[in-house]
Amino acid sequence: MDTGRAPHIAIDAMGGDGGPSVMIAGAALALQRNPALRFRLVGRESEISAELAFHPALAKASTIVHAEEVVSGEDKATQAIRRAKTTSMGLAIADVKGGAADAAVSGGNTGALMAMSKLALRTMTGIDRPALAALLPTLGDNDVIMLDLGANTECEAKNLVEFAIMGAAYARTVLGVRVPRVRLLNIGTEEMKGTEELRNAASELRAADHLHLRFDGFIEGNQIESGETDVVVTDGFSGNIALKSIEGTARFITDLLHRAFSSSLRSKAGFLLSRPAFKLLKVHLDPNNHNGAVFLGLNGIVVKSHGGADVSGVANAIDVASKLVVNQITRRITEDLDTIHNRQAAQPVITGSAA
Amino acid sequence: MDTGRAPHIAIDAMGGDGGPSVMIAGAALALQRNPALRFRLVGRESEISAELAFHPALAKASTIVHAEEVVSGEDKATQAIRRAKTTSMGLAIADVKGGAADAAVSGGNTGALMAMSKLALRTMTGIDRPALAALLPTLGDNDVIMLDLGANTECEAKNLVEFAIMGAAYARTVLGVRVPRVRLLNIGTEEMKGTEELRNAASELRAADHLHLRFDGFIEGNQIESGETDVVVTDGFSGNIALKSIEGTARFITDLLHRAFSSSLRSKAGFLLSRPAFKLLKVHLDPNNHNGAVFLGLNGIVVKSHGGADVSGVANAIDVASKLVVNQITRRITEDLDTIHNRQAAQPVITGSAA
Repeated sequence: MDTGRAPHIAIDAMGGDGGPSVMIAGAALALQRNPALRFRLVGRESEISAELAFHPALAKASTIVHAEEVVSGEDKATQAIRRAKTTSMGLAIADVKGGAADAAVSGGNTGALMAMSKLALRTMTGIDRPALAALLPTLGDNDVIMLDLGANTECEAKNLVEFAIMGAAYARTVLGVRVPRVRLLNIGTEEMKGTEELRNAASELRAADHLHLRFDGFIEGNQIESGETDVVVTDGFSGNIALKSIEGTARFITDLLHRAFSSSLRSKAGFLLSRPAFKLLKVHLDPNNHNGAVFLGLNGIVVKSHGGADVSGVANAIDVASKLVVNQITRRITEDLDTIHNRQAAQPVITGSAA
Repeated sequence: MDTGRAPHIAIDAMGGDGGPSVMIAGAALALQRNPALRFRLVGRESEISAELAFHPALAKASTIVHAEEVVSGEDKATQAIRRAKTTSMGLAIADVKGGAADAAVSGGNTGALMAMSKLALRTMTGIDRPALAALLPTLGDNDVIMLDLGANTECEAKNLVEFAIMGAAYARTVLGVRVPRVRLLNIGTEEMKGTEELRNAASELRAADHLHLRFDGFIEGNQIESGETDVVVTDGFSGNIALKSIEGTARFITDLLHRAFSSSLRSKAGFLLSRPAFKLLKVHLDPNNHNGAVFLGLNGIVVKSHGGADVSGVANAIDVASKLVVNQITRRITEDLDTIHNRQAAQPVITGSAA
């Protein structure tokens, strides 16, 4: 959309485990942080109005869009698509398509959100496949962006190159990094490692100049959180495996810690004394602080808030959406796509043998 | 080998970051735990003799096999193979091939060890591709076995089925589980998720009766360490990504904990008080307690000890090797392979369409 006005965000008020109360309180918090925002709250009018009574400032900055139905967590994407015109998720996306909103935020069913968004907004010119990107914590100063996380089970080299461009545009927008460091996830860092698709994508990225990113080669799974890269690019299968392995291990170690500190009176006392340290750890690992996965590569901005996100998590997802609007993510992706395509057009022979 | 005699283990005394002193002290500890073991210590005779002076019991239970050269961590597999007859790694494997040893243990270069083992010992009849399997800690009572971890970048359905059979035989041997619970790593647990290879492998495993395992369907990356399964089967690419993501996250959180507990005097005091709790956590996460990755599917047993393993870690890897010998892992794998192949021979039409 145009940048002359404040971002209008369509909120699927019914999605997410906490329902309207969490989504609407999240919007209220986002408004408090950025008073210029405007909202379209999509869902059952009576429930939304009841919640808005607690948030008078948000009420003034919002329009309610009534939707009778809700996409459930169990709905298959194919079922959800058929109810695009009656569900809160479908109407929030329709708001983006129609121009009433600049971005949509939903905490609902990921598969349904992806399918509905793709159908309604269509893939950007020059992009073969959209991808799902998320933020993960690192030991460095910034979060790291990883994509794709499950939208594309199998990928060709050109898809991975597109993911690199989209991920870098996302990093420039959300992390504020001028020239994002980009790597391809692989099972070794040597040039000959991994699949043919990975090797071809690497040589394509190595050869491309004038992109708004710095390609640093391959990265292994144990370096994702090291802080040495801004964008980790991978196919949706490996990305999903990596993301969930990371989540599972964080949970595993937190559970072990909990067990260890409950094992004796001395440990319990130590825990009480160490509470500030644990709080610091919790803040760093809290998924709410990294909330807001994005479907990149569509003609419109759709942000997925974690189903279990709390009020602050929802506000963070809305913040991500508004940054993507203000920084014109779509235009940034288009610029780098043009660079890649011009290079391919200029050097057909080299590209033909390398990709 | 025959089971009438105590296991003879060939030790690549030169491999591993700690060199002969750690490998030989590890063998001494393994002998202390199981006095029936016999060793062939392969490497530079002078260095081995010097270390054996500290371990008189091990000296009596060992034969030294002189090898002039050592495979380095930087050697490519193709280079290492050419020096199979002069390196400690190559001669340890040759001992298994020749029958002087029942198993080999090395802490050296994984790629070289895999290539040398495959070339010298050859793949078992009925197995298309060997796989690398390792143990990971869980919240349950037992470790979990994951394979393949990088030997095969891309896999067909039949490879995954073979990995399931080999992993289950490994679980019966090392974890002592009578009927191991086996799952395929995927990006969702529904039947239609993932690649065609995964879906075909699942239907093959679901259909096969009389295997010494229970196939429980798919598992996601966040459940690997939950303790709900004994064997996680995957292709080498995803397995490597999952394993390294797990390792990286464990390191990430440990570093965060360290930072948090160094952040204030109060936290430092809490740390001191909580030391027993942290020790408990450390024991659970210490890779030495899960040391001993195995190349499954070869005509002979080769165990990879972690390069950075300490004395107790090396002893654990030797313990894994000796259990595999005593429990005749190769025979167990052959039994289940026969079951699968008989089923395929009996039902050619169904197999043809399903796989």
